[in-house]
Amino acid sequence: MSAIRQDPTTREWVIVAPNRARRPHTARDEPAAAPAPDAACPFCPGNEASTPPGLLRLPGPGGSGWAVRVIPNKFGALTPSGEPVRRECGPLFREMDGVGHHEVIVETPRHDRTMSRMTDAEVELVLRAYQARYKALRADARVKYIIIFKNHGERAGTSLSHPHSQLVAAPVPPMQTRRKYEVATAHFDDTGRCLYCDLVEAEVEAKDRLVLETDRFVVFQPYASRVPFETWIAPKRHEPSFAQVSAEDLVGLARVLRRTLATLGAVLGAHDFNYVLHSAPVEDEGKRYYLWHIQILPRLQTIAGLELGSGIFITTMAPEESASLVRDALARGAGGR
Amino acid sequence: MSAIRQDPTTREWVIVAPNRARRPHTARDEPAAAPAPDAACPFCPGNEASTPPGLLRLPGPGGSGWAVRVIPNKFGALTPSGEPVRRECGPLFREMDGVGHHEVIVETPRHDRTMSRMTDAEVELVLRAYQARYKALRADARVKYIIIFKNHGERAGTSLSHPHSQLVAAPVPPMQTRRKYEVATAHFDDTGRCLYCDLVEAEVEAKDRLVLETDRFVVFQPYASRVPFETWIAPKRHEPSFAQVSAEDLVGLARVLRRTLATLGAVLGAHDFNYVLHSAPVEDEGKRYYLWHIQILPRLQTIAGLELGSGIFITTMAPEESASLVRDALARGAGGR
Repeated sequence: MSAIRQDPTTREWVIVAPNRARRPHTARDEPAAAPAPDAACPFCPGNEASTPPGLLRLPGPGGSGWAVRVIPNKFGALTPSGEPVRRECGPLFREMDGVGHHEVIVETPRHDRTMSRMTDAEVELVLRAYQARYKALRADARVKYIIIFKNHGERAGTSLSHPHSQLVAAPVPPMQTRRKYEVATAHFDDTGRCLYCDLVEAEVEAKDRLVLETDRFVVFQPYASRVPFETWIAPKRHEPSFAQVSAEDLVGLARVLRRTLATLGAVLGAHDFNYVLHSAPVEDEGKRYYLWHIQILPRLQTIAGLELGSGIFITTMAPEESASLVRDALARGAGGR
Repeated sequence: MSAIRQDPTTREWVIVAPNRARRPHTARDEPAAAPAPDAACPFCPGNEASTPPGLLRLPGPGGSGWAVRVIPNKFGALTPSGEPVRRECGPLFREMDGVGHHEVIVETPRHDRTMSRMTDAEVELVLRAYQARYKALRADARVKYIIIFKNHGERAGTSLSHPHSQLVAAPVPPMQTRRKYEVATAHFDDTGRCLYCDLVEAEVEAKDRLVLETDRFVVFQPYASRVPFETWIAPKRHEPSFAQVSAEDLVGLARVLRRTLATLGAVLGAHDFNYVLHSAPVEDEGKRYYLWHIQILPRLQTIAGLELGSGIFITTMAPEESASLVRDALARGAGGR
């Protein structure tokens, strides 16, 4: 079992998971868009037995096979057994067992079908799987924070190239999230409004970093983007948690996400990226301080010493400029309709 | 001129520096240990005219040529002109001009002489150059925070392979540093002691993460290491700022740094890494809350979506295990004496 340790200088948590050193890496042996199903790929149909038993299975068209599978991460950083009891290891050091959940969402049976090539309906199934697992795991009283993310490409940390995302349900919210909450709470106390709702409104008003707007969602490149082409997708109504998104809105979100990723691909060419689905900590879902949102981070630059050492990022393109490029591509229909 | 923008959700700063997109990248065209001086390398002797005029020049042996040069970064993220006056861009967005200093320390005239191959005396000259620039820049009233770092290898963000480090003097401390200060201040208020001094003492006492100890310095792999083989070098006496290190201690530090890097190289083979020289913010140098230290971060793992999205790192090796490997290598004399 892994351990979760607290950094005494930042109070941030680190997961020490030696078993993950053994996970297979095939991504770097394959071209960016891998050609075809692979007998050695644990996520391809026919190889289901090489992964742990499934947690969720959405049936394929006509009920045959599967469209999306969710399985425990075979080399999971956290394990769903035990209790996250803190141990004091001397006056400064604190740790607990690595209790939690680490799951893999296999997004499609097709080895080469990246999200921007999917239909809207296929992306919707992925989002439904995210939400189903999110709702199931927040019922676990040990779970305090759920994060869903995708590593696409080697520079983004993929170890397997078959399209998949991951879910981590942790027994403690990240200190970074606690800090964001402090900022948002102070804003609410000052103004009586949700900082993130105000932010979405301000980006819609400013227009120059806006990428796409529907009746329900806003896509923009944030004012203080950390990397070129950083892109956020946020809801227009106040919803702190992804668990709260309606089935109808998942349909609209699927279309917005697919178009956004495809358009970024049209502008940047094949590129590595991460996306992260942020939600409020489980116990704060009812508060008015936060908004779930998807943060897309293209990995065009390397994170270097300044970023790692200080937290200050240097971005080489203003979001106003990159957003204008993405808007132009969208207008040309580069990312589909 | 670049701009420094504040993220309204984290209050962290981001430098928007479009001119840096134009900087040359030669590192990825060369093998990890580049073979020989290069006519196209702006940091090799003979090519001094291709870089901006020098800020510091330490003469070579016998006074001929130079041993270490410091020059402004030709594609600097910050510029030493103007005043860092904040501009409110609406109720949520805040920025200032990119005022500050961004310098390059060319560590040696030899294109292929990485720090672990240098003599102790050569490393000492590099540290003297760091300190001389640190002292010169903290006299600039606009400078609130100085960070010195090294990107070694492409995975660590190097754009040029000739051995060099960088210095950034910013008009505002990183929010991350402010947060670390909060933690350290609370510890001081609770205990009357410096958190970092206590940490060094606790690591010396725990022994199992300790790598090297001299009369003046401690090298250890921290309890909550973010990446495998993360290694800190810290002083035993209370010194918040690198500006306060005595000339005598720079000699000892050079030896410790060179041995540590060489031993990590012996254990890991050729590998990319960052190191960061942390100091207290300029105005807090007199306080008892902080300790300058060097943090070495081997880039063996890719920083992926979980790390970027939550701040929680997953490390695949416990620091007790990696420290033991490094201690064994040191005992064998793998990193020199």
